[in-house]
Amino acid sequence: MKNGTNSEDTEGMDIIKRELHNIKNRDAKSDINLKPIGVLHSSLKTLKGIPIQFSMSDTKGRIEIFEEYTSGLKDLDGFSHVYCIYFFDLVRLPVPLQSKPFLDNTKKGVFATRTPFRPNPIGLSVLKLINIEDNLIFIKNVDILDKTPILDIKPYVKEFDTIKVSKSGWLESKVRKKLS
Amino acid sequence: MKNGTNSEDTEGMDIIKRELHNIKNRDAKSDINLKPIGVLHSSLKTLKGIPIQFSMSDTKGRIEIFEEYTSGLKDLDGFSHVYCIYFFDLVRLPVPLQSKPFLDNTKKGVFATRTPFRPNPIGLSVLKLINIEDNLIFIKNVDILDKTPILDIKPYVKEFDTIKVSKSGWLESKVRKKLS
Repeated sequence: MKNGTNSEDTEGMDIIKRELHNIKNRDAKSDINLKPIGVLHSSLKTLKGIPIQFSMSDTKGRIEIFEEYTSGLKDLDGFSHVYCIYFFDLVRLPVPLQSKPFLDNTKKGVFATRTPFRPNPIGLSVLKLINIEDNLIFIKNVDILDKTPILDIKPYVKEFDTIKVSKSGWLESKVRKKLS
Repeated sequence: MKNGTNSEDTEGMDIIKRELHNIKNRDAKSDINLKPIGVLHSSLKTLKGIPIQFSMSDTKGRIEIFEEYTSGLKDLDGFSHVYCIYFFDLVRLPVPLQSKPFLDNTKKGVFATRTPFRPNPIGLSVLKLINIEDNLIFIKNVDILDKTPILDIKPYVKEFDTIKVSKSGWLESKVRKKLS
């Protein structure tokens, strides 16, 4: 960026003014390369007995943000919950596109389930934020294996992310049963 | 997998029995390579005037899932909302780790905002699912640029994803103001 990428002196989120890749050269089939921004630490050392969802977990843990990204945590501590986006690094590709999920006996499409065994093994958990110390985010409701690479952290915002749902598909009766 | 990766005949989600990468050889700093599973089509052809959040958008669109993944959509139509995880392919790295977001005048850490300009430019939107025809998912509340590569689709499940939030940090007063 001519006027200083990585400068922290941007004037508002004026996305139009930033230097972008050329909009005419886009290819939605191009490979995408990502670098983890951190690593998760938890008591969940093996897959056996791991909570099947963050909403069913009381486990605490911490996200270690790699030093070079620490300044990106400013003001995150004002939020009670965060989205944690991570990579299921143990998953071996390719995966089946249909399988029987944990909570049911008939096959579902992978995109209608929350299985880790996905074409892009990306995980998404909403975690309760306890506190932040330097580059460590202390969190609760962890359903993520120890040493999992972290891709992104975003604030969970009630006004954006709490949705009035009218249908929960095949999970509708299952989840209620499991939690009660 | 010895007993048939890509076979669609798995018995339950028995993740312990699947062949995984060796848990001892993990490196949380390894690069991660992903391949888009589809592409988004919308009337949002440029960044100018694009809705700043899905919760503020009425725009319709469709996600084209690439043919080879179509069978993964089975039963997704039972859900009223889906998480769409995508790649901000126009973002040029590196990005500033702190900047002034659209809704405020003081600098925030990138992980305390929802800006597309993130170390891993991964987007997350909750979209209303209208219907599915073959490999096309018709959706509403689109805040995503036309031709954006799609990484994953997951069902939004009220019991998992609707969280009782106690703090929305710097966004708390801003969002209310903007929407009212």
